[in-house]
Amino acid sequence: MADRDSRPPPPTHVGRSNIPPISSNAEEEALPEFEPFGIPRGPPNLKDFLDIWDVNMLKNRDEINKKEHHTDLYDNVKLIVRRGQPFQIKLTFSRPYNPEKDQFCVEFLIGGSPQVSKGTYIPVFPNQEQVKGEWGGRILQSADNVVTLSITPAADSIVGKFRMYVAVMTPYGIRRTARNPERDVYILFNPWCEDDSVCLDNEAERNEYVLNDVGTIYYGEASNVETRPWIFGQFEYGVLDSCLYVMDNAQMPLTGRKDPVKISRVASAMVNSKDDDGIVVGSWSGDYLYGVAPTAWTGSVDILLNYANSGVPVCYGQCWVFAAVFNTFLRCLGIPGRVVTNFFSAHDNDGNLKMDVILDENGQFMPSLTKDSIWNYHCWNECYMSRPDIPVGFGGWQVVDATPQETSDGMYRCGPASVKAIKHGQICFKYDAPFIFAEVNSDVVYWKRMRDGTQQPIKVNKHHVGQMVLTKEVGRDEIKNITDQYKFPEGTEEERLAVDAAVMYNLKRTQITEQPTVVDMDVRVQESVLIGNDFNLTLEFKNRTGQRQTLVIYVNGNIVFYTGVTKTEFMSKSLEFTLGPWETKTENVFVESKKYINKLVEQATLHFIITGRVNDDTQILTAQHVVPLQIPRLTIKMEGVPKLNEEMSATVEFTNPLKKNLEDVSIRLEGPGLMKTKLKMYSIIPPNSSLTWTEYFRPSKSGVRKLVACLDCAALHQVLGVTEIYVNP
Amino acid sequence: MADRDSRPPPPTHVGRSNIPPISSNAEEEALPEFEPFGIPRGPPNLKDFLDIWDVNMLKNRDEINKKEHHTDLYDNVKLIVRRGQPFQIKLTFSRPYNPEKDQFCVEFLIGGSPQVSKGTYIPVFPNQEQVKGEWGGRILQSADNVVTLSITPAADSIVGKFRMYVAVMTPYGIRRTARNPERDVYILFNPWCEDDSVCLDNEAERNEYVLNDVGTIYYGEASNVETRPWIFGQFEYGVLDSCLYVMDNAQMPLTGRKDPVKISRVASAMVNSKDDDGIVVGSWSGDYLYGVAPTAWTGSVDILLNYANSGVPVCYGQCWVFAAVFNTFLRCLGIPGRVVTNFFSAHDNDGNLKMDVILDENGQFMPSLTKDSIWNYHCWNECYMSRPDIPVGFGGWQVVDATPQETSDGMYRCGPASVKAIKHGQICFKYDAPFIFAEVNSDVVYWKRMRDGTQQPIKVNKHHVGQMVLTKEVGRDEIKNITDQYKFPEGTEEERLAVDAAVMYNLKRTQITEQPTVVDMDVRVQESVLIGNDFNLTLEFKNRTGQRQTLVIYVNGNIVFYTGVTKTEFMSKSLEFTLGPWETKTENVFVESKKYINKLVEQATLHFIITGRVNDDTQILTAQHVVPLQIPRLTIKMEGVPKLNEEMSATVEFTNPLKKNLEDVSIRLEGPGLMKTKLKMYSIIPPNSSLTWTEYFRPSKSGVRKLVACLDCAALHQVLGVTEIYVNP
Repeated sequence: MADRDSRPPPPTHVGRSNIPPISSNAEEEALPEFEPFGIPRGPPNLKDFLDIWDVNMLKNRDEINKKEHHTDLYDNVKLIVRRGQPFQIKLTFSRPYNPEKDQFCVEFLIGGSPQVSKGTYIPVFPNQEQVKGEWGGRILQSADNVVTLSITPAADSIVGKFRMYVAVMTPYGIRRTARNPERDVYILFNPWCEDDSVCLDNEAERNEYVLNDVGTIYYGEASNVETRPWIFGQFEYGVLDSCLYVMDNAQMPLTGRKDPVKISRVASAMVNSKDDDGIVVGSWSGDYLYGVAPTAWTGSVDILLNYANSGVPVCYGQCWVFAAVFNTFLRCLGIPGRVVTNFFSAHDNDGNLKMDVILDENGQFMPSLTKDSIWNYHCWNECYMSRPDIPVGFGGWQVVDATPQETSDGMYRCGPASVKAIKHGQICFKYDAPFIFAEVNSDVVYWKRMRDGTQQPIKVNKHHVGQMVLTKEVGRDEIKNITDQYKFPEGTEEERLAVDAAVMYNLKRTQITEQPTVVDMDVRVQESVLIGNDFNLTLEFKNRTGQRQTLVIYVNGNIVFYTGVTKTEFMSKSLEFTLGPWETKTENVFVESKKYINKLVEQATLHFIITGRVNDDTQILTAQHVVPLQIPRLTIKMEGVPKLNEEMSATVEFTNPLKKNLEDVSIRLEGPGLMKTKLKMYSIIPPNSSLTWTEYFRPSKSGVRKLVACLDCAALHQVLGVTEIYVNP
Repeated sequence: MADRDSRPPPPTHVGRSNIPPISSNAEEEALPEFEPFGIPRGPPNLKDFLDIWDVNMLKNRDEINKKEHHTDLYDNVKLIVRRGQPFQIKLTFSRPYNPEKDQFCVEFLIGGSPQVSKGTYIPVFPNQEQVKGEWGGRILQSADNVVTLSITPAADSIVGKFRMYVAVMTPYGIRRTARNPERDVYILFNPWCEDDSVCLDNEAERNEYVLNDVGTIYYGEASNVETRPWIFGQFEYGVLDSCLYVMDNAQMPLTGRKDPVKISRVASAMVNSKDDDGIVVGSWSGDYLYGVAPTAWTGSVDILLNYANSGVPVCYGQCWVFAAVFNTFLRCLGIPGRVVTNFFSAHDNDGNLKMDVILDENGQFMPSLTKDSIWNYHCWNECYMSRPDIPVGFGGWQVVDATPQETSDGMYRCGPASVKAIKHGQICFKYDAPFIFAEVNSDVVYWKRMRDGTQQPIKVNKHHVGQMVLTKEVGRDEIKNITDQYKFPEGTEEERLAVDAAVMYNLKRTQITEQPTVVDMDVRVQESVLIGNDFNLTLEFKNRTGQRQTLVIYVNGNIVFYTGVTKTEFMSKSLEFTLGPWETKTENVFVESKKYINKLVEQATLHFIITGRVNDDTQILTAQHVVPLQIPRLTIKMEGVPKLNEEMSATVEFTNPLKKNLEDVSIRLEGPGLMKTKLKMYSIIPPNSSLTWTEYFRPSKSGVRKLVACLDCAALHQVLGVTEIYVNP
């Protein structure tokens, strides 16, 4: 590559378009305070005409607009309203308004070169009847010099920050208020409005998916689900502006910003930094020297503010960070959104229905030849909207995924794809449905690789991938299992039809003739295993025949990233034994903590691959078992009476459970409406030693509030704590 | 934005995937010449086993492979074959091959970390029966030490450059040929193969759309179509490697490179430099100081080679350059492709069915407020392939467009979209069909803007946009009108249904009540106008009523870019007259060349907007008329007998037709199989002065050959010449 600086200057819009592309909300040109009609012949005589003395936006939290528009939670002094719903302003003129004689309008403008036909310049006249797809205006009251005006933005208005002017028409020209940023109006999506394409017809769901600024993200393993609290913080100071900045930085044309399909698609590209200088840099390497470890974040606010202030992608994220930041973006703009977790998620397999696992001639796993990885879990987002761009029936929840994927066309964006279309295998409808279908439906194909380089598929597991899709329950901190939204029950005719449909649309799968089942193998761990403890991996074998069977079993214990990628093998054991006719036998494999404890990566997960042969090659046995190690939680104790603006304190406590020092420990503490993110560093915490950290704060919002803490260091990640208090007004 | 250099190093694949992403054809690791099985116990005794003495790829132009695979035209010494079709190689062993005892295979590898399950490592055994979707091998002859092997790549093989080895199995390990780049094999798409998804079942069409390396691109105006010869040059030295480089630079995973849908989509993003450092930088500004003017190119070869050698985007292109380079890419890889031109193409209107033109209160055009532009013409590509990813019935020609568009989701790629789906308004099927549908079907909506900023739609023209879609005829240099592939005839029920379907899928249009037609207006120019000449613009008015009508007519003459963007107004005239009952009147508007000649931009096109009012506001008259100015052609004279490798000469002649000096004139001369691109500069050509330039060359390919010349300078662009000769073998 040649030096970037030797390149010619970037081309201009000249010759390409009459006016430059309109793709920045931040851009503006002020309108003149007096705009003459034609060439003025002497100074205009305006004394007989209305003059605008004051404009009251009724924008305080306790005034009508923010309450009615469910925007009173935003920490933002400007007016924030939702489209398709009336809001009020009060205009004070120099004298009483006379509808027979006086003519005025309220002008809303967004971006550069605003235009009526593009929806970027909207003059609203009093008594402008509300027509579908248009803005409306109505005088509610006119008393003395004060007119109270009700304005209804179109239900498909552009979403963003509008500038507002009041203009009075005179025969000489237009008299106008001066540019005043205090009269800026944010217009957001409106799930409460029937005509808005994000309409969500359930108050409890709207409270969760739009207004809840704290949530829970699930991870771990299907039989051992872990929870991670997360501060979405969509109402925090600066977050709304950051979300608009994200679209500006994507150079997304303003005219597209009325459509949640387009906005969510652009955001799926912008939340990750790949190829567009988006928000978060993904890294799975375990080396996070240049930034914050993905496991160390407590919420999205720092990330978004950091990005918007610097213009530089923030280091680092993994899937739950991308999904959580995306969720903040969606809820902040008013699009109902949630984070979902898919357990055993097929990945990087080019949207095919097969994940290839390569075994050697003896049946042992070959990580160096296995490209595909099944993630222990993968988080993505759902957003709720109608889909007028595809046939009817596919509106509702849509999958969007901001984690950069290795897709076969090499593009780092994904979705929105209708969850219903995924369920039915109708993957021909945009966007990126084949990829998502494969994430929940792939088969695991075990290949046996011969010495001469040839390979044979020897076993297909149809039930490993997409075992469970979870999200947080509406209104309470519980798991909501939504697997049935993505898949028909296993073994049903509908399930088969859905997969057949997907195969018809060119997804590839591998069909093989199954070997006869001679021996059943089951793998389990007795109970949840605390990090640093020894435990038994229990293998149970059952002979399903009347013949004696000889078994050779290999147990590989690996430290894996949650992406299924092996970091290192920490144990390897082989067993050889026989099973009598119909016999059931249990074998315990003892796993010592000292073997794994110094090799763990951030998610403290052990991955066992158990393979084996029955009577040489009658049957190949394969199983994968994930053991997430339990990590102690942080405890948070609150002291004081929780009351608005009254001081109280939170104390975080933690004891090092390991038999070694924890070094360079960071703890974050964050609670929207309680305190901004606090960060504390400890250079060393010896074994069994405890830390106690007390922070004083004054709640700034009332109601149920959460405080989230997260401890992170090289030896121990994902140490989390959360507490909830009720703040009295 | 912060300094790029202060950023952390890019994340690695560690933790993210077992092996790095496989997205480069250029990457390779050599295989060992001896690969032992297990740990060797002493040196292996290989003397009893086959040794490989020679591998003959039968890769010369006159040998069987390139002839049968239609790849003999490529100026490339390596073997080039097409998938799904057998080719032959000859192996010479150390002794005769004994099928009972000896075991060997031919290995094909592409990219890093090759794998059987990904199709990037393929061992082919002799007598490996051809199964659909697999590679096959067969011994044709075994005589003395020489085995002639027939190998058939899978019809859905990855397309690219494979490395080849011959491997002999011994009990000690694998004995293998050394890495030898002379045995590399390019595998291309195969339109001659039934099982290939680009199969095209017509020999004449394959000759045109795959094998023709010269073509014609149409431009100008619907009633005055101009032709531009173009050297696609897909067989020229280095072009095939450049096309593979383009996919490598896009980091397109190798596994996706079996699918023409994915390849054409990635290329639609890569042909323009926007957001991905693609091949050509678009500029429409008229200022091409830093590179070559878009009008000055004679073909794609220089552009592709320049890009592949420097890794830096090439300056500059406009739509026909993007389309022509894309066409070279498609034909070079074996995907049938053609360049099409849409006359009056809607653009930058967010895929909506309306193009807004803003008039002031008097009915005069307001360029500063008109954002949408209708391009006089726009070139894109069609590529031929099946579409297994969408419902049946949409295979065949697919639109792809590499010109960077202002789309409402801000992404610079477009297609493939089924032409048939466009015709039927079935725009819900991927990719980007709404945008292309709008390009050929938009209405032109005239808005009247009042002094107070409000706007009213006053007239809709449904027939201006997408007047005609043209491409070159198969096998001869004539126009093929394919408008009926894109649209049903105007006014038919099918046309209405198609537009209704598109509107159902969320395209927006403007419906207005039409004004009564009182007066008809027709605009024409008597004959084609030579650049530098005066002419009359003829307006004809017909009163369709029995009442007298008063007309006020405004004629605006503008210099426009071919994008419809106004550079400057060069004349403005108003007429006022009356029409008697049923009267027809003709008004001539005289256009002087001195008014426009010094203001022209590269396409020498005049754009007249004629608007007017009948009896004040009974009816608004609007018309747009484009007058492309005729530019003299270059003449090319050939001397000598055209015979392979015999010297002959070409003489380019040109006379300056303008009344001023031409300065800094460049001429390019190019003809595949005749000569590489020659460039000559003239610092000045006075008025009426002539230039004569003779070049000597020796034809390197026989058959019909074309030579294309192009003269370009600031005052005169698009001066083209082409000649055809038959070269005797």
